Amino acid sequence: MRRRTALKNLSSLAAVAIAPDFVQAKEDRLLNTHTSKQSLRKIATEEAFTIPEIATAYKEIVHKGGTNLDLMVLKQIYDAPVGQSAGSSAKNNDVSNRDKQTQSMLPKLLDFDPIRLADMDANNVTMHLLSLTMPGVQILEKSQAIDLAQLANDRLSEVIKQHPTRFAGLACFAPQDPAIAAKEMQRSINNLKLNGFIVNSHTNNLYLDDPRFFPILEAAEALDAPIYIHPRAPSDGMASPFRDYRIEGAAWGYGVETSTHILRLIFSGTLDRFPKLNIVIGHMGEALPFWLWRLDFMGAPGARAGRKNALKPSEYFQRNITITTSGVEDPSALRFCIDKIGVDRIMWAIDYPYQPTTPAVSFIEKAPLTETEREKIAHGNAERIFKIKP
Amino acid sequence: MRRRTALKNLSSLAAVAIAPDFVQAKEDRLLNTHTSKQSLRKIATEEAFTIPEIATAYKEIVHKGGTNLDLMVLKQIYDAPVGQSAGSSAKNNDVSNRDKQTQSMLPKLLDFDPIRLADMDANNVTMHLLSLTMPGVQILEKSQAIDLAQLANDRLSEVIKQHPTRFAGLACFAPQDPAIAAKEMQRSINNLKLNGFIVNSHTNNLYLDDPRFFPILEAAEALDAPIYIHPRAPSDGMASPFRDYRIEGAAWGYGVETSTHILRLIFSGTLDRFPKLNIVIGHMGEALPFWLWRLDFMGAPGARAGRKNALKPSEYFQRNITITTSGVEDPSALRFCIDKIGVDRIMWAIDYPYQPTTPAVSFIEKAPLTETEREKIAHGNAERIFKIKP
Repeated sequence: MRRRTALKNLSSLAAVAIAPDFVQAKEDRLLNTHTSKQSLRKIATEEAFTIPEIATAYKEIVHKGGTNLDLMVLKQIYDAPVGQSAGSSAKNNDVSNRDKQTQSMLPKLLDFDPIRLADMDANNVTMHLLSLTMPGVQILEKSQAIDLAQLANDRLSEVIKQHPTRFAGLACFAPQDPAIAAKEMQRSINNLKLNGFIVNSHTNNLYLDDPRFFPILEAAEALDAPIYIHPRAPSDGMASPFRDYRIEGAAWGYGVETSTHILRLIFSGTLDRFPKLNIVIGHMGEALPFWLWRLDFMGAPGARAGRKNALKPSEYFQRNITITTSGVEDPSALRFCIDKIGVDRIMWAIDYPYQPTTPAVSFIEKAPLTETEREKIAHGNAERIFKIKP
Repeated sequence: MRRRTALKNLSSLAAVAIAPDFVQAKEDRLLNTHTSKQSLRKIATEEAFTIPEIATAYKEIVHKGGTNLDLMVLKQIYDAPVGQSAGSSAKNNDVSNRDKQTQSMLPKLLDFDPIRLADMDANNVTMHLLSLTMPGVQILEKSQAIDLAQLANDRLSEVIKQHPTRFAGLACFAPQDPAIAAKEMQRSINNLKLNGFIVNSHTNNLYLDDPRFFPILEAAEALDAPIYIHPRAPSDGMASPFRDYRIEGAAWGYGVETSTHILRLIFSGTLDRFPKLNIVIGHMGEALPFWLWRLDFMGAPGARAGRKNALKPSEYFQRNITITTSGVEDPSALRFCIDKIGVDRIMWAIDYPYQPTTPAVSFIEKAPLTETEREKIAHGNAERIFKIKP
């Protein structure tokens, strides 16, 4: 599908209206750049986008229906009747504040300029490390997933070329076909010069410890490029208790799904087979740093027949895993993680557009950190891990 | 089944041999009591026991087989060929250190005196708050569960009467029949003078937010007695990704199962319907304190249609939830939790016999705490929450 056609189809998806204040903000950008010269360099590392063709594909999936838990949030974002809830809050208490916000996500996901850059400028954010928003192409049928992954990577590359100091990006791929995925990974790094990869946890209910995905892990190691394992809702085999009370998503299910994924990589021995893998996880490490004492006690090498880990779980955090602060703007949690896994293993993120930019910026600017710690978390570690030009 | 018969049947379950050093330790007890007069009073709040009849019932369940994830650990504890692995470690690396320890759990679970009291004395532990070990009677058929819950509570009460300064206890009940459970709860508090209740997470894959269990929650409120929600392995509807690599248990699945249970109670509005419920969770709050910032952000009242919580998740931690340190002897995690939920909401635990006593004691004696904090966590909060005589 061509871009123009896709954009036309999108008219029914959401009103991509550019508000006047964004235009004003764009005009203010040069001024901000000057006044913020002395400010902290800030690279946000879990920033979401999509392209019209994938938004259209999600809408089709939502219409088709199914049991996959991601459909609950995809319906809100990609198939919400535009403006339905905005004026009806007084009448319908069940349509609530975050649901309304979710319905306004699509224009921000589809935009790079002017909405996103204006938001970055207004908050002195240096750079977004962009990644295709969850659940990526992993929820699509194989051939469509392969095609749209390439298209999304091409578009991402174009945007970065237009704004090389403001955007970097993580490539997506279709784990549904690991061999083709590995080729797309090579193209993304070698030709498109992207900065790593994003995988949205499970693919058709399988995790990356499944040997069929090993060509993907081999490629990541060979290319010396990190894989950001981003959440999606719990896989079918663990979905049932998450179907009620909307706990499938960012409030809870995402964290359980992703942390379980990481522990499968550890206890399966996958991180021993691929010792140079560089895994990134968001949301303050999906609480795994908090669990490390117990994980080490209960999960030491050889603690149970059936486990294959050669190291203690905390040792994989020293060798293979880096975390970001996305969605957890808690100075106590940040300090705990610095103590536990080290300041070199932590990167700042906003989680745009799902989290508001201003408090995320305030968090990294004001958290009680040494200036060395702040520089590392705000940009230094991201420059090292994602090979972003300082 | 009578006690003598059950004990006889147990001979095939495990070798309940009393080692000479335990006898020696018993003789040393009086001396220890004197020398430890000035030491910190320590009430351990998640200490497991079983009775022969329930051990026999578990063995039968293991033989029957099934898909329930708890069977993986029950097989290790209740149906392990005695001594099989002890001498074979050099030959069979797959039978590992923790598996071997698990096979030695049963004698300790069945004992109160001399093994347990000797272990307590040797470590200056004042008291065990005893509870029937997981998965309690909740894995049994309804009528058997009802009978064995009563029997376990009777035995527990007897043991406490024999050692009123050394043991307190939590009553079990059979959620399979909520009306009878409520009656047993009344008997346990009013007649047996027990200190609260233990529930091992789900019952037949249902959680306590299911209205059929409301008589149980009503009884707990009316009796002003806390419910300790202890882990068991993930329920069938979330079990699939936990079946590999032995991540179903203490290393990971337990925490996911129990934290998900608590969030169902919060987001279903159950804790609003029963605002006086006093819930206790172990394992440093199953990492929920670490998640509180994100839970509050994503789970504020009205954040999503389908949720019923009237308060922010952190507010339930102030009103309804107390945590214990069982299995997480991490001073950083303890300090984080004090900062996050307050020192009055944290109680010490060992998790005997699953965790060794000496390091758990060392943890509470040496953690960087003020003496006021230490006294509250070591015993003061437990005295208040469980109505234990100071």
